Amino acid sequence: MEFTAKMIAEVLGGTVDGDEHVKVHTLSKIETGKPGALSFLANPAYTPYIYDTQASIVIVKNDFVPEKPVKATLIRVENPYASFAQLLEMYAKTKERSAGISEKAFVASTARIGKNVYIGEFVSIGENTIVGDNCKIYPNTTIGYNCKIGNDTQIFQNCKIYDDSVIGNQCTLHAGVVIGSDGFGFAPQGENYQKVPQIGNVIIEDNVEIGANTTIDRATLESTIIRKGVKLDNLIQIAHNVEIGENTVIAAQTGISGSTKIGKNCMIGGQVGIIGHITIADEVKIAAQSGIGKSILEKGAIVEGSPAFSVRDYQRSYVHFRRLDSIVKRLNEVERKIEKEK
Amino acid sequence: MEFTAKMIAEVLGGTVDGDEHVKVHTLSKIETGKPGALSFLANPAYTPYIYDTQASIVIVKNDFVPEKPVKATLIRVENPYASFAQLLEMYAKTKERSAGISEKAFVASTARIGKNVYIGEFVSIGENTIVGDNCKIYPNTTIGYNCKIGNDTQIFQNCKIYDDSVIGNQCTLHAGVVIGSDGFGFAPQGENYQKVPQIGNVIIEDNVEIGANTTIDRATLESTIIRKGVKLDNLIQIAHNVEIGENTVIAAQTGISGSTKIGKNCMIGGQVGIIGHITIADEVKIAAQSGIGKSILEKGAIVEGSPAFSVRDYQRSYVHFRRLDSIVKRLNEVERKIEKEK
Amino acid sequence: MEFTAKMIAEVLGGTVDGDEHVKVHTLSKIETGKPGALSFLANPAYTPYIYDTQASIVIVKNDFVPEKPVKATLIRVENPYASFAQLLEMYAKTKERSAGISEKAFVASTARIGKNVYIGEFVSIGENTIVGDNCKIYPNTTIGYNCKIGNDTQIFQNCKIYDDSVIGNQCTLHAGVVIGSDGFGFAPQGENYQKVPQIGNVIIEDNVEIGANTTIDRATLESTIIRKGVKLDNLIQIAHNVEIGENTVIAAQTGISGSTKIGKNCMIGGQVGIIGHITIADEVKIAAQSGIGKSILEKGAIVEGSPAFSVRDYQRSYVHFRRLDSIVKRLNEVERKIEKEK
Repeated sequence: MEFTAKMIAEVLGGTVDGDEHVKVHTLSKIETGKPGALSFLANPAYTPYIYDTQASIVIVKNDFVPEKPVKATLIRVENPYASFAQLLEMYAKTKERSAGISEKAFVASTARIGKNVYIGEFVSIGENTIVGDNCKIYPNTTIGYNCKIGNDTQIFQNCKIYDDSVIGNQCTLHAGVVIGSDGFGFAPQGENYQKVPQIGNVIIEDNVEIGANTTIDRATLESTIIRKGVKLDNLIQIAHNVEIGENTVIAAQTGISGSTKIGKNCMIGGQVGIIGHITIADEVKIAAQSGIGKSILEKGAIVEGSPAFSVRDYQRSYVHFRRLDSIVKRLNEVERKIEKEK
Repeated sequence: MEFTAKMIAEVLGGTVDGDEHVKVHTLSKIETGKPGALSFLANPAYTPYIYDTQASIVIVKNDFVPEKPVKATLIRVENPYASFAQLLEMYAKTKERSAGISEKAFVASTARIGKNVYIGEFVSIGENTIVGDNCKIYPNTTIGYNCKIGNDTQIFQNCKIYDDSVIGNQCTLHAGVVIGSDGFGFAPQGENYQKVPQIGNVIIEDNVEIGANTTIDRATLESTIIRKGVKLDNLIQIAHNVEIGENTVIAAQTGISGSTKIGKNCMIGGQVGIIGHITIADEVKIAAQSGIGKSILEKGAIVEGSPAFSVRDYQRSYVHFRRLDSIVKRLNEVERKIEKEK
Repeated sequence: MEFTAKMIAEVLGGTVDGDEHVKVHTLSKIETGKPGALSFLANPAYTPYIYDTQASIVIVKNDFVPEKPVKATLIRVENPYASFAQLLEMYAKTKERSAGISEKAFVASTARIGKNVYIGEFVSIGENTIVGDNCKIYPNTTIGYNCKIGNDTQIFQNCKIYDDSVIGNQCTLHAGVVIGSDGFGFAPQGENYQKVPQIGNVIIEDNVEIGANTTIDRATLESTIIRKGVKLDNLIQIAHNVEIGENTVIAAQTGISGSTKIGKNCMIGGQVGIIGHITIADEVKIAAQSGIGKSILEKGAIVEGSPAFSVRDYQRSYVHFRRLDSIVKRLNEVERKIEKEK
């Protein structure tokens, strides 16, 4: 699709400064803009780029005064970043699938599908499952029996939703996500292990985003719970009976062991490992690659290391670790001197 | 499904103490029990909960004597935990798919499917593959050519089994598991890399459980082998030509590099990395996030760290690492004193 | 398929020494060879095995002189390893799927499929997508809208290619790979997070291999780029706007955060974490489990640790870390002596 500067200015309530008929079909950064692209100038540090950019249109602040000729058409608005974000979102919307259920999908006769839903090819939706309005379910996704999916939720391709899962409104599950696989529970029995059946489920509240190939295990009893507003990156492991508090953000490849409870508004870096059966307070920040071996009860604590402790202390210790060789040499020297003085 | 206290007592060979007509439809912990749930009391520490629980039925020991009135119906048995586990397993069984091959599945004409098998929608089973009796293969799973799958094995949705894979009896593969992808083998050729073809396969023995989105690469030649009773958690990486010994248990996100041989009855924590071409003895325990850079030949060794060494020594070193700043200050002070004494 | 020693010798331009009618159907290592297997002897250290091997045929150097009787048929060639590699590759080729589009696949009417392409069951190919000649797309793979896939590329089962992805020639994507999922971009908005739409794409150049269940996120704007000849192992995470230089090799479970640029011909170990918005020079080597927190600008640097520094310094520090307890005891002793002398 292509849009003229005039059309875009109307959408944004801005004014055109230049050729109002110039067309764009994509969005770009100002420093790498190409003909046919629309960009924006919000941060003054990027102002020099506006004189050289190849972008066809640049959104600028109402009061922007060029110091040299500008080739691009300008659209003047109150807040260029907000206007650009608005276009980003509109652009992303145009990429979404239209409603409609593929003839090549399978929907069990007892399943109930809401209004205005997209269901792609080779999607399988099991018995008694309920899918809300305006959902989009991409090809090759499998949804089990007795699941409940809210409104306006997107589930990308090849996701695997086990029986009894509950997913809220306005959630996004990226490709390959697994919801409701068995928790890792085995009771030793001599040299072997006896499986502990996992009969709970997973509950995902509203406005949660889950990254590609992330796995969330069902509870042994009751529910593994992901509270509203949580954002999980790719390839994360959430074990059985975990609860993650509202608006907590977790970066890629982190793993959380069974029955651990994470607070609200935490920020957890990538490749962090958190042991089972502990509690992490609200607003805790955990540095990437840290290992958490016991509860963190102080709200807002910032930790690092494996096992982790206060980030400031960790970094101070690590500075010394880097020069341990010279520290040991100093100790050698001290011992030599004492020996000599005897 | 609902069951009365009377029906459950008969199954367990127990006796009802209270309303034998009360019905339950789910299982729960005693401290969070709700009407319609059945719970159990095995650990005396939980006894106080029995007086307040909302659970409709609680399984207790034959000799349990309440000190206060109990609202729930009691079922008295010899071993409450074992009885509860028995019900858990029966409950889990009711969730399994019934036998039957979906019309929307694809089974190659040369494939041989056993008796009483479930094959879900959009499953693809390739040429000459053999599937044993009582197997359950969930939707969107792909099984390649010349595979052999034993009896009573469950393969959940969207698994990817490459050609020539061999999977034993009573195995469980959770959603998204990959079996038999190419090992990571490339020979340098100037600045480029030449792929080393990977023509071996993967052999998984009986009673193995593999977690969601775990990947197991095929051998370059011969076989990557997962011995009987092994339990692998989610998002684990097993490289080509690895062998994992009987009843070894590995937690999530651990990676094992090529040609390494792991012993029997080992316990390996989450996010552990193990280098290639080494041997780990039987019954070795490896702490989470450890890195194993050389063979561990001592049976039953317990290690931690990256690179890992004895867990006791690691923890002692780490205690000092945490206070390295004060240790260095002490060294400064010692140097100052010696300087002064001169 | 079975081949006689005579047929194989003709292919390799070698000469048969022994029974030219003996047949083989597989390839193996010399030390584990079985009847019906062909093996090779390249490394003199393995010479003793040739007298006991059960392999039916062994490829040896032209000038090999046995010191004892050899049961196997020998094929003499100039370079046994190269000849064996040639057979490995031929064998691997025989395993590839024949061309043909399954009736159970879905190909959008606006998609364009090249010549001699294999498309397996339940593959979904979206609107306006172009697939080049000789591609092989295995069952249950989902390819979105407006994608472009070059010639001679293999995409194994259950891969998930999002809209607008570009994949080059001679690439291999193993099962479960995700290309083009949304980057992890959220702008704080009070206690909540507002999603930043991700409207860029992923570009994968020629001759790239991507391991099972690896995930590569699309750019916010413009492209995440994997340059030609890159080899990625399983379960790797590549975030939005990352660029990976030519012929760089990355081992399993490594994660690279957003907007980081990795140079050419780097070697990155397994379970490494690399922070966002940094630059790694060409030919850098990073040890397994390292954490990279700032740019590495020195070409060919070798680093280890979390955070990482020079591998030599890291290993020296780590030696001291292992004996920190005795170092602290020495410091205690020094303090005691100084105190006594007062």
